[in-house]
Amino acid sequence: MRVAILGVGTVGEQVAKILIQNQKLITARSGKEITPVIGVVKNLNKKRDIGIPLTDDMDAVLKRDDIDVYVELMGGVDYPYRIISEILKRKKAVVTANKALLAYHRYELQNIAQDTPFGFEASVAGGIPIIKTLREGLSANHISSVKGIMNGTSNYILTSMMQGGASFERALKSAQELGYAEADPTFDVGGFDAAHKLLILSSIAYGVYGKPEDILIEGIESITKEDIFFAQDFEYIIKLLAIAKKVDDKVELRVHPALVAKDKMIAKVDGVMNGISVVGDAVGETMFYGPGAGGSATASAVISDLIDIARDVKSPMFGYKIPLELTPLELLAQDEIRTKYYFRLTVDDKMGVLAKITNIMSENNLSIDSFLQKPKLKGDENGVTLFFTTHTSLELDVKRVIEILTKQEFVKEKPFMIRIEG
Amino acid sequence: MRVAILGVGTVGEQVAKILIQNQKLITARSGKEITPVIGVVKNLNKKRDIGIPLTDDMDAVLKRDDIDVYVELMGGVDYPYRIISEILKRKKAVVTANKALLAYHRYELQNIAQDTPFGFEASVAGGIPIIKTLREGLSANHISSVKGIMNGTSNYILTSMMQGGASFERALKSAQELGYAEADPTFDVGGFDAAHKLLILSSIAYGVYGKPEDILIEGIESITKEDIFFAQDFEYIIKLLAIAKKVDDKVELRVHPALVAKDKMIAKVDGVMNGISVVGDAVGETMFYGPGAGGSATASAVISDLIDIARDVKSPMFGYKIPLELTPLELLAQDEIRTKYYFRLTVDDKMGVLAKITNIMSENNLSIDSFLQKPKLKGDENGVTLFFTTHTSLELDVKRVIEILTKQEFVKEKPFMIRIEG
Ligand SMILES: NC(=O)c1ccc[n+]([C@@H]2O[C@H](COP(=O)([O-])OP(=O)(O)OC[C@H]3O[C@@H](n4cnc5c(N)ncnc54)[C@H](OP(=O)(O)O)[C@@H]3O)[C@@H](O)[C@H]2O)c1
Ligand SMILES: NC(=O)c1ccc[n+]([C@@H]2O[C@H](COP(=O)([O-])OP(=O)(O)OC[C@H]3O[C@@H](n4cnc5c(N)ncnc54)[C@H](OP(=O)(O)O)[C@@H]3O)[C@@H](O)[C@H]2O)c1
Repeated sequence: MRVAILGVGTVGEQVAKILIQNQKLITARSGKEITPVIGVVKNLNKKRDIGIPLTDDMDAVLKRDDIDVYVELMGGVDYPYRIISEILKRKKAVVTANKALLAYHRYELQNIAQDTPFGFEASVAGGIPIIKTLREGLSANHISSVKGIMNGTSNYILTSMMQGGASFERALKSAQELGYAEADPTFDVGGFDAAHKLLILSSIAYGVYGKPEDILIEGIESITKEDIFFAQDFEYIIKLLAIAKKVDDKVELRVHPALVAKDKMIAKVDGVMNGISVVGDAVGETMFYGPGAGGSATASAVISDLIDIARDVKSPMFGYKIPLELTPLELLAQDEIRTKYYFRLTVDDKMGVLAKITNIMSENNLSIDSFLQKPKLKGDENGVTLFFTTHTSLELDVKRVIEILTKQEFVKEKPFMIRIEG
Repeated sequence: MRVAILGVGTVGEQVAKILIQNQKLITARSGKEITPVIGVVKNLNKKRDIGIPLTDDMDAVLKRDDIDVYVELMGGVDYPYRIISEILKRKKAVVTANKALLAYHRYELQNIAQDTPFGFEASVAGGIPIIKTLREGLSANHISSVKGIMNGTSNYILTSMMQGGASFERALKSAQELGYAEADPTFDVGGFDAAHKLLILSSIAYGVYGKPEDILIEGIESITKEDIFFAQDFEYIIKLLAIAKKVDDKVELRVHPALVAKDKMIAKVDGVMNGISVVGDAVGETMFYGPGAGGSATASAVISDLIDIARDVKSPMFGYKIPLELTPLELLAQDEIRTKYYFRLTVDDKMGVLAKITNIMSENNLSIDSFLQKPKLKGDENGVTLFFTTHTSLELDVKRVIEILTKQEFVKEKPFMIRIEG
């Protein structure tokens, strides 16, 4: 089986290396020699140490007759979409790690691919075979929820803040120094990367459509040390969660920081690791843990797809042989989310303010569960910071309360909210 | 796809129920209706509430022409081996949850099956698709180790001992009352059930042969509250681990209680849950968590195999299309195990005893790492109990030391040892 690697960067380089290093084992497992025959890069002058020939002539590689599988590891959306469509139309198999591409074009690609193998295990949590697990391992189950830590960069930052007491800025800087975060970290810390992965998983769990624009995405940029302290006081850990959840006949998809009870398995996923919990009606609760990124872990997933292709093992792309005949699942509107909420609120330190706040809340159907008032720091002119959590509430009400509070004279900063998950 | 269920007990009943309850979803996912058409039981007079016809005439069911897949859920070894061989010879697909059968006859069954589908995902940690994960998801990797908590009963008992301070006997009794342990618990607490599962996983990870008799199996029956206290003092948790590990060109297979560092992911797997960590050369460390038993979680795995068969997805039984051409892996002799050890030793409370012990140890290549002497209880005529751990040592030396110590007059009870894992 002859493979072309389109993009030989962090992941592509490891794919080539592992195919060569583990060749004997891979041949035994797949029944065929899987040989990387050519790599395509943008800049041929870069120094690299890879045991395969390289070219920058994409068109020539696409036209070759001797390639059985194309592995796309360039990144981007429009260009790889064009290239992959072309390859699939020629009935050549494709493997990709490109979650951004799939977040936007997975159903178009499914249509083009039809029966041509299309592997994308590496697109979500490379070290965890979560796509195979959902699509095949848990296929007997109605999935109640898929909840996970799907972005290693954000998890590293939050772990540093929780364990080392670092501020967001300092934790981000150390992540960048260690190579865990890009120079422009928006994509990771803003929740977009996790959202792409969530959309892919929810296609398998629920067969739902949806693009990043359709779902709630909030990042971790506004989390402060105070939020961390509050969480610790109340036995919570703060995690950036990607959540797909069935609520009646709808599916809720959201990515945001969340307070997670300390004793949950998912709360124990630290540093750059990923963890995804899946609850199914037959299986109950499961959790899958492993590295979410890195060249070598991602290459492990890419090659597992290549081995499945060599073995001629082929599950339907999102696990449905027949389009879902159930009540068609719809995305739940953001306003309809129901959960518990944590608030951080800086207000004037005056008599009567607390009463006003609780009034506004109860008029809008929010009731307070627990309450913590930080002792006023000496010489702090900026008012006093209140922390509290609510009982289960409707997101629409929460939004309205935040809007109303923001307008109050005694409120010094826009109130900050974190959702509570289990 | 018409299915016969041979054995309609705890698991079989759930298989029938879920196939019926989740039928629409399962049909969409598998592309075929999967219909349980007949169940075979021993005692037709038992009251049951299952939506399929039952019979006690096995032969008649085996002879039917309208069955596509047989699901074996009776338990036992010889009888199901005979039945399944017969079915496979007729080229009919088989799915089983029977780990005891596979521990003894998996390679014979592989030979008979050849290309006939044979599913056994349910035989190891039902709620965790670990067979698929090892065979397909991590197929690019040389596996360094598979380590896990694969027996829910033992884990429930150890968790009760650690968290509730119960003695082994009391924890066992409560497990029995809750239905987590059989009347005769030997199979679970003695490590045999975990050993069966380990043998199955090591066929996939390493392609090694081996029957339960060939490997080290120790149970948790001799663990005392004192061991638990020691573990807690030194930041360890005691778990019954099943371990498959590559050591040079050999594979070490063993099941025994182990001290596990508290911050390891596997140490956090509590109660009846299972957790299996897999380390691969490309992927790094992963961990998979879920219910290991129970009718419904096990049925989830059985049905996932049925769906794969309906989808015509078929990986090689142990993941090798070609018998492993690597240096043939051999089982490591027990005496060659190298790890750290914990000792509990009750001795006369006399001058010089400690010196004698350390002498015997150093003469036999053991060196002490940490040491805890329990304060002598008032009026305790039975001597004083010593607890200590060693640096990495050879099992052969440890055995010899235990033998020598046992013969010493100042030693009151046979010394007790627990291996330390990471
Ligand atoms: N890195 C990870 O840990 C990770 C994890 C999971 C998924 N992924 C996904 O895997 C993909 C690759 O990521 P990466 O980290 O390996 O990226 P990378 O290190 O930036 O490598 C990209 C490679 O593609 C080549 N390339 C880019 N545009 C090209 C074009 N127009 N024509 C030809 N070659 C082109 C680059 O060539 P030059 O070398 O000449 O610049 C480079 O070799 C992305 O979709 C990413 O989201 C990555
Ligand atoms: N229970 C679990 O949580 C679990 C988890 C993983 C794997 N497993 C495995 O799954 C298998 C079944 O376990 P289980 O707990 O469901 O057992 P079970 O509750 O004891 O059920 C066994 C069933 O098989 C029937 N049976 C036994 N011998 C038979 C024979 N000679 N001819 C016809 N029918 C026969 C029994 O009939 P009667 O009902 O008439 O007695 C009963 O319906 C075992 O291999 C077990 O190791 C079980």
